[in-house]
Amino acid sequence: MSDLVTFGETMLRLSPAGNERIETASEFEVRAAGAESNVAIAAERLGTPSTWLSKLPDNPLGRRVAGELERYGIDADPVWTQEGRQGTYYLEQAGKPRGTNVVYDRANAAVTTAESEEFDLEALRNAEVFFTSGITPALSSTLAETTATLLETASQSGTTTAFDLNYRNKLWSPAEARETLTALFDSIDVLVVAARDARHVLDLEGDAEELAATLGTEYGFETVVLTRGSAGALAWHGGEYHEHDAYETETVDPIGTGDAFTGAFLARRIDGDDVSRALEYAAATAALKRTIPGDIAVITPDEVESVIDEQTSDISR
Amino acid sequence: MSDLVTFGETMLRLSPAGNERIETASEFEVRAAGAESNVAIAAERLGTPSTWLSKLPDNPLGRRVAGELERYGIDADPVWTQEGRQGTYYLEQAGKPRGTNVVYDRANAAVTTAESEEFDLEALRNAEVFFTSGITPALSSTLAETTATLLETASQSGTTTAFDLNYRNKLWSPAEARETLTALFDSIDVLVVAARDARHVLDLEGDAEELAATLGTEYGFETVVLTRGSAGALAWHGGEYHEHDAYETETVDPIGTGDAFTGAFLARRIDGDDVSRALEYAAATAALKRTIPGDIAVITPDEVESVIDEQTSDISR
Amino acid sequence: MSDLVTFGETMLRLSPAGNERIETASEFEVRAAGAESNVAIAAERLGTPSTWLSKLPDNPLGRRVAGELERYGIDADPVWTQEGRQGTYYLEQAGKPRGTNVVYDRANAAVTTAESEEFDLEALRNAEVFFTSGITPALSSTLAETTATLLETASQSGTTTAFDLNYRNKLWSPAEARETLTALFDSIDVLVVAARDARHVLDLEGDAEELAATLGTEYGFETVVLTRGSAGALAWHGGEYHEHDAYETETVDPIGTGDAFTGAFLARRIDGDDVSRALEYAAATAALKRTIPGDIAVITPDEVESVIDEQTSDISR
Amino acid sequence: MSDLVTFGETMLRLSPAGNERIETASEFEVRAAGAESNVAIAAERLGTPSTWLSKLPDNPLGRRVAGELERYGIDADPVWTQEGRQGTYYLEQAGKPRGTNVVYDRANAAVTTAESEEFDLEALRNAEVFFTSGITPALSSTLAETTATLLETASQSGTTTAFDLNYRNKLWSPAEARETLTALFDSIDVLVVAARDARHVLDLEGDAEELAATLGTEYGFETVVLTRGSAGALAWHGGEYHEHDAYETETVDPIGTGDAFTGAFLARRIDGDDVSRALEYAAATAALKRTIPGDIAVITPDEVESVIDEQTSDISR
Amino acid sequence: MSDLVTFGETMLRLSPAGNERIETASEFEVRAAGAESNVAIAAERLGTPSTWLSKLPDNPLGRRVAGELERYGIDADPVWTQEGRQGTYYLEQAGKPRGTNVVYDRANAAVTTAESEEFDLEALRNAEVFFTSGITPALSSTLAETTATLLETASQSGTTTAFDLNYRNKLWSPAEARETLTALFDSIDVLVVAARDARHVLDLEGDAEELAATLGTEYGFETVVLTRGSAGALAWHGGEYHEHDAYETETVDPIGTGDAFTGAFLARRIDGDDVSRALEYAAATAALKRTIPGDIAVITPDEVESVIDEQTSDISR
Amino acid sequence: MSDLVTFGETMLRLSPAGNERIETASEFEVRAAGAESNVAIAAERLGTPSTWLSKLPDNPLGRRVAGELERYGIDADPVWTQEGRQGTYYLEQAGKPRGTNVVYDRANAAVTTAESEEFDLEALRNAEVFFTSGITPALSSTLAETTATLLETASQSGTTTAFDLNYRNKLWSPAEARETLTALFDSIDVLVVAARDARHVLDLEGDAEELAATLGTEYGFETVVLTRGSAGALAWHGGEYHEHDAYETETVDPIGTGDAFTGAFLARRIDGDDVSRALEYAAATAALKRTIPGDIAVITPDEVESVIDEQTSDISR
Ligand SMILES: [Ca+2]
Ligand SMILES: [Ca+2]
Ligand SMILES: [Ca+2]
Ligand SMILES: [Ca+2]
Ligand SMILES: [Ca+2]
Ligand SMILES: [Ca+2]
Ligand SMILES: [Ca+2]
Ligand SMILES: [Ca+2]
Ligand SMILES: [Ca+2]
Ligand SMILES: [Ca+2]
Ligand SMILES: [Ca+2]
Ligand SMILES: [Ca+2]
Ligand code: NI
Ligand code: NI
Ligand code: NI
Ligand code: NI
Ligand code: NI
Ligand code: NI
Ligand code: NI
Ligand code: NI
Ligand code: NI
Ligand code: NI
Ligand code: NI
Ligand code: NI
Ligand code: NI
Ligand code: NI
Ligand code: NI
Ligand code: NI
Ligand code: NI
Ligand code: NI
Repeated sequence: MSDLVTFGETMLRLSPAGNERIETASEFEVRAAGAESNVAIAAERLGTPSTWLSKLPDNPLGRRVAGELERYGIDADPVWTQEGRQGTYYLEQAGKPRGTNVVYDRANAAVTTAESEEFDLEALRNAEVFFTSGITPALSSTLAETTATLLETASQSGTTTAFDLNYRNKLWSPAEARETLTALFDSIDVLVVAARDARHVLDLEGDAEELAATLGTEYGFETVVLTRGSAGALAWHGGEYHEHDAYETETVDPIGTGDAFTGAFLARRIDGDDVSRALEYAAATAALKRTIPGDIAVITPDEVESVIDEQTSDISR
Repeated sequence: MSDLVTFGETMLRLSPAGNERIETASEFEVRAAGAESNVAIAAERLGTPSTWLSKLPDNPLGRRVAGELERYGIDADPVWTQEGRQGTYYLEQAGKPRGTNVVYDRANAAVTTAESEEFDLEALRNAEVFFTSGITPALSSTLAETTATLLETASQSGTTTAFDLNYRNKLWSPAEARETLTALFDSIDVLVVAARDARHVLDLEGDAEELAATLGTEYGFETVVLTRGSAGALAWHGGEYHEHDAYETETVDPIGTGDAFTGAFLARRIDGDDVSRALEYAAATAALKRTIPGDIAVITPDEVESVIDEQTSDISR
Repeated sequence: MSDLVTFGETMLRLSPAGNERIETASEFEVRAAGAESNVAIAAERLGTPSTWLSKLPDNPLGRRVAGELERYGIDADPVWTQEGRQGTYYLEQAGKPRGTNVVYDRANAAVTTAESEEFDLEALRNAEVFFTSGITPALSSTLAETTATLLETASQSGTTTAFDLNYRNKLWSPAEARETLTALFDSIDVLVVAARDARHVLDLEGDAEELAATLGTEYGFETVVLTRGSAGALAWHGGEYHEHDAYETETVDPIGTGDAFTGAFLARRIDGDDVSRALEYAAATAALKRTIPGDIAVITPDEVESVIDEQTSDISR
Repeated sequence: MSDLVTFGETMLRLSPAGNERIETASEFEVRAAGAESNVAIAAERLGTPSTWLSKLPDNPLGRRVAGELERYGIDADPVWTQEGRQGTYYLEQAGKPRGTNVVYDRANAAVTTAESEEFDLEALRNAEVFFTSGITPALSSTLAETTATLLETASQSGTTTAFDLNYRNKLWSPAEARETLTALFDSIDVLVVAARDARHVLDLEGDAEELAATLGTEYGFETVVLTRGSAGALAWHGGEYHEHDAYETETVDPIGTGDAFTGAFLARRIDGDDVSRALEYAAATAALKRTIPGDIAVITPDEVESVIDEQTSDISR
Repeated sequence: MSDLVTFGETMLRLSPAGNERIETASEFEVRAAGAESNVAIAAERLGTPSTWLSKLPDNPLGRRVAGELERYGIDADPVWTQEGRQGTYYLEQAGKPRGTNVVYDRANAAVTTAESEEFDLEALRNAEVFFTSGITPALSSTLAETTATLLETASQSGTTTAFDLNYRNKLWSPAEARETLTALFDSIDVLVVAARDARHVLDLEGDAEELAATLGTEYGFETVVLTRGSAGALAWHGGEYHEHDAYETETVDPIGTGDAFTGAFLARRIDGDDVSRALEYAAATAALKRTIPGDIAVITPDEVESVIDEQTSDISR
Repeated sequence: MSDLVTFGETMLRLSPAGNERIETASEFEVRAAGAESNVAIAAERLGTPSTWLSKLPDNPLGRRVAGELERYGIDADPVWTQEGRQGTYYLEQAGKPRGTNVVYDRANAAVTTAESEEFDLEALRNAEVFFTSGITPALSSTLAETTATLLETASQSGTTTAFDLNYRNKLWSPAEARETLTALFDSIDVLVVAARDARHVLDLEGDAEELAATLGTEYGFETVVLTRGSAGALAWHGGEYHEHDAYETETVDPIGTGDAFTGAFLARRIDGDDVSRALEYAAATAALKRTIPGDIAVITPDEVESVIDEQTSDISR
């Protein structure tokens, strides 16, 4: 029985090696990539048994996604279907001024038809935490409804619900996002949100502390975690603030940093850590993630603790 | 001004190296692949200026397709659009008993919305030959209509129209194909069809000569080319039969063999060869194609002539 | 709860691409490879929940092995240890007259210290079948003892015990193998053995039927499956014979063929098939395995059934 | 009909991946690379129809060069010959203090025998701009003569002539270069020159403005563009100065930066931009080029405009 | 002090992976390749200390060639020069009817200027055997003269001289070859020649035995070895005939087969074997070579002996 | 006859490309890697004939190591044995905070059984310098004894003995190292030691000059070279100090930097340079090494001199 259950889309990520352009590439690297499976894996790697729920096409592409996720230790427990396709995205990594670019090809993915009745809701009810993100309801109206139902189901069973706002401007507008997402807030206990999105999507103002407190009090969240990239993270929890700096890191692949942060935060909270300690693990896991190619935080608890203890040397031999 | 104009979908073909499985691959090779662009390239390589018409998404994937096609010498002249996606297919090559397998992911490709008004019909009217295949009308009802219009337009301008039946059982049933395709036959001068499809899709009976003659007389084609895989090809032309064996070949990639055959046949016919001689070139080009990775016949006239003259040795140095 | 539990060593397999030589290779492909995990995976892929027991070093190499195995769906449930190393083998594939060659580097692997107390014996007792092979007791005297204990434990709990003789002449002599292995036969219900090993290691004589019957009656096996490479397999079961030809196959990687055969045989027997039908699935799975790079039968039930139904065409599109 | 016609050598560029040494590499990446084709492609990508003239061996290597260039949209219209070889260069990329190193193997390339009569001079006469660089006349005395003739022919037909001084110290000495190149200046309207070369090759003194003005007035150029690497570029045009900073960029491959700059400058001038605006596009295109592996600026107008508008974020999704 | 000294050109061999075409390849594999270094390495691998003499450009390409050769155990002792280039050839492997094709780019290689005074003739005089092939004098008139001088020098010092006729029709005509090569025959003790070349180049007639005897008696060779591809080899030695079949082999790369044969033959003769036994080693080494990618016979004495003893199984583990 | 003889273990280094994790890699790059062969190669590349002594398993892995080392010009003269394995290490390169990590798998390597009688001691006695490092005696008690004997043998024959302390905390504790290594100091003329190890392992205190002087006078070394990473190196020699800064370098692979430094220092000392000049070469060679993938300094004397003369530009063409 998993302590953490997550729900969302995982895509195939297709990307040229190094800084090659999609337009001229003759090979793509293939990886599984999705915010909610990233969160589950980060938590599992830190010792929290985790399950990822989704819906996948019953073909080699869907099996590839589930297989890769299980490799990292989680239970991938998707609904398998003959309808719908495997969502993909094409990723081109580049430095400034070109910048990293993403071409989404995720319309009509099998997951966009996922309804709450298709899932084993007992797993959800028995979990300690249920997590999904703002990407999921953005993908289809069916998914918006399913997201709402799953959050309510979890909430009503005493399962803590956690949510990363995860605004994607290639999926919807700030106004659309705000309308859909704020309607879910009632069923959410723990909100993770980028300060930028709190302002841009939720239309809030003020400094980080004000944003967190406004969210916490206005929507009645138990915990609000505000992420600010290299400026570190701030948590509001029962009226108190906890803060932690971002660790210095040599970035190889920034995608998935936020998910690693959130997965680690939830794992440590499930394990009984207070918010401060959980933030510290989250920051260290996020820093490690940035050194690893792909979306996924393939880390160990020892590595995270070494970052916290500042024990990493340049070469260990 | 191109002598041959073709129209159809070209996909991105994504395939693991060697005999790896899609389910476990960590890299995909990327190539442009489509029956009608394959035909245009085979003809261009044999000296016939050729243009491929289509509709592509105006993004790195669409540009990748057009760019790769231009590399082989043809003019890729697609309509560029902000709507619709780039069609893809995943290819897994394998020997028996696994067999080569294809996972199509081509629904809602940009090309499925292509209407005849979007194209420069002058190019079509001035070409010597216009070619498309039975895949195109199978892709959407819009495309079925566009295919009909383009064939009629060409036909009415004195452009010879050529058509490869190209039945794909992952796209439609034999009955659906028969209904749509036979309605086009009035506007078609040259039909290329696999003997297997003549029987299975068009519901004809008899030996190869009977199939060809029945098609020729019943539907009023100028030329019918019946392909029979390793058993060679048979053409019916004005009541006469011409035949040519398949050349022996060590197959590295069988995909696109029929397109190479058709492209070479049309190129030689445009150049003034009689049907017999054109069949010979077609068979030699098809044999060469099978030694080349990818869908495309990257050949030279000299190489084709060497095959015909049986001058190839094992090593030339 | 898994229906099949297997126990044995899984190595990292390091091999140059294609036919390159180890002596000059600049890259090795890396895969997990072990007879008993191969068997578990073949069974899991055909629908039998399976668990692989072993002992691995708690380092990135050990985690790589367990992670890759879980990707194929089984539960990898090794004991993790700070002692001992990850066993490896270097594989060089080549045609005749060079031949494929293996350099073992498996001495002092962590698994060689595995004792029966370290494992969850309940899993074994609750399984329908417990499987290991003649490689395991060859690896250390500790393992020989552990193998005996696990077989006895399973046997005494009513779990069917299955064993592949799997003689490796780089590990021990025929005489050593015979002495150790025949001492285990009492606790074994189902024996899989190559006809060649029945003669060479067990010192038996006669044709296939005689070998199988002699083994069955002399040692009291419930079932004896005699494998004869391309000559197919013969099973002796309760005094009756069942036979199945090998399917024709284009071999890309022969390693693991026998394990795929055995895994499929056990899966079908667990699912209730009679010996004849199980042999048919086993032969089809083995034929598919040979088309797949690596030790592991990454197959689906549909593919196996297509082989049996002879429905595979050259290209499916 | 192309608006821009360029003339020069394009080589095969062979380079080890990453920072490997040529001396120990087991694979070379292969790309087409030549200053004048680079300029044509940069211009074509920004919307100016462009043709590259040259002479190539009629073999797979020559075809590879022309094919790759056409992939980027230009018309590659080389003279094909049975004589002469395909020029190559070996490139080893490295950071300090090793530094990037080039081994030229371009002697006796087919292009070194190219005479003006071999080309379609109508294309030149009808173009808006004809471009070549100081590399071309350095390659052979025949090419020096051909360069002079083509520049004169263009000049006399009212085609604007543009020239990048492009001094290469592995090809000739400053004194040799000065003598040959200054003799061409009469036929040149637009000169692009590195400040370093203005001093070292043309033996001029003074600050950037003085260099540009001296060149402009002494040799009667219509426009002089002085490039100064990361210090930006300065143009003298009809007695006025225009300047633009270099954009910040994370360099992946510096080769071809100057060519991207010049191609963009010419494209925007052809399109009607004033010198200031053209300099801005040139600087942005050059900055993008440095993020792209290979010699060639595989960019889009949108990307260039984003750089100018400073709209690039780190990740766009 | 080496027992075998060889002299000739070694090129960089650049080839696309698998069956890709040079015209579209994005990577080339790089290997050192030359008949005379191939012969030296085959001999060294079988226990005969061997040295290869040549002339190489003192740049990373020349060092790459020498370094790779030393990796296989021989002493590469080239003259290093600032003049001339590194010869290369582009190799495209393909099955029928395309066939393997070679594009030479070896004109003006540094070795074409090698004069006998540049070499340490003591090494030649002290060797047991000196070997070169008909490729060497075909490369330049200087090399033709140097070849003659080195053969005479060796001959006069009592060093056995061996020569493989090695006709290459991309280098010269049969008549040119005949004139140059027969003039060298006086200084040659052991001639290796393909039956095809004996007929086509030397204008001889008759069956294999007649060809060998005619050569032996007419030109006074001590030994004549006639190779006939898959039909095996025949040696004429002091009026007697020795013959050996070719061993069955799965060919991965046929290039260098003849050189492996000759190197093994010479190694065994130097070691004291009679002609029959040496032919047997030569045939076995040649068969092994064909299973190995690249020009070079990376084999061991044990492997050769296993072939002779027919002890190779499909998999050894 | 080599001027420099070194003795020690060389491993196979297996590493994922780029920053991939060992746990998920599907390919490993393979290189030979050992401190003492690294030193020999750095010296050989700078013109000092060098030999590396060791003991290797007589299998493809052992031959791979020796072959790769000979490629760089040294004489690899190992004892070949049927006992023991090839030592390996797995290397994962990463930036902060992950850091580069090494998994050793070197226990029971063939070299751990090497005894002094197995080697040709004449080579040692005739060399100008004999070198080994503190890794060697850490590998086994046999090797500790052999190291002592070889150092004494060299010392007594007038061969200068050089030693790099090279402490590895994955092999032994500081106390164990101190006891074993200080017992060797009597036979050592030149000590190279990291300042960090002088403090941590040898338990010394003071600034760099004090450390060097204490070592020199207390243990009677002729020369002490203290390395301090990016802070440069300090040598104590006959009571005088010589110092040289580290050159600025863009690090691609830091492994082997110290060995490149030491090899260059010894080469220049053997060639007659004074300590100051040798330090300068050592620093320049070390800086170049860091730009080169792998353990080995594949450099040329010209490149080292360019670094010293500060003549390297960004691109040389
Ligand atoms: Ca698990
Ligand atoms: Ca599962
Ligand atoms: Ca790869
Ligand atoms: Ca074109
Ligand atoms: Ca599982
Ligand atoms: Ca590679
Ligand atoms: Ca174009
Ligand atoms: Ca063209
Ligand atoms: Ca590649
Ligand atoms: Ca040697
Ligand atoms: Ca050597
Ligand atoms: Ca040497
Ligand atoms: Ni779990
Ligand atoms: Ni994220
Ligand atoms: Ni902290
Ligand atoms: Ni064309
Ligand atoms: Ni086709
Ligand atoms: Ni014919
Ligand atoms: Ni399962
Ligand atoms: Ni097996
Ligand atoms: Ni059957
Ligand atoms: Ni254009
Ligand atoms: Ni440039
Ligand atoms: Ni600006
Ligand atoms: Ni030797
Ligand atoms: Ni040869
Ligand atoms: Ni024989
Ligand atoms: Ni040497
Ligand atoms: Ni070191
Ligand atoms: Ni200095």
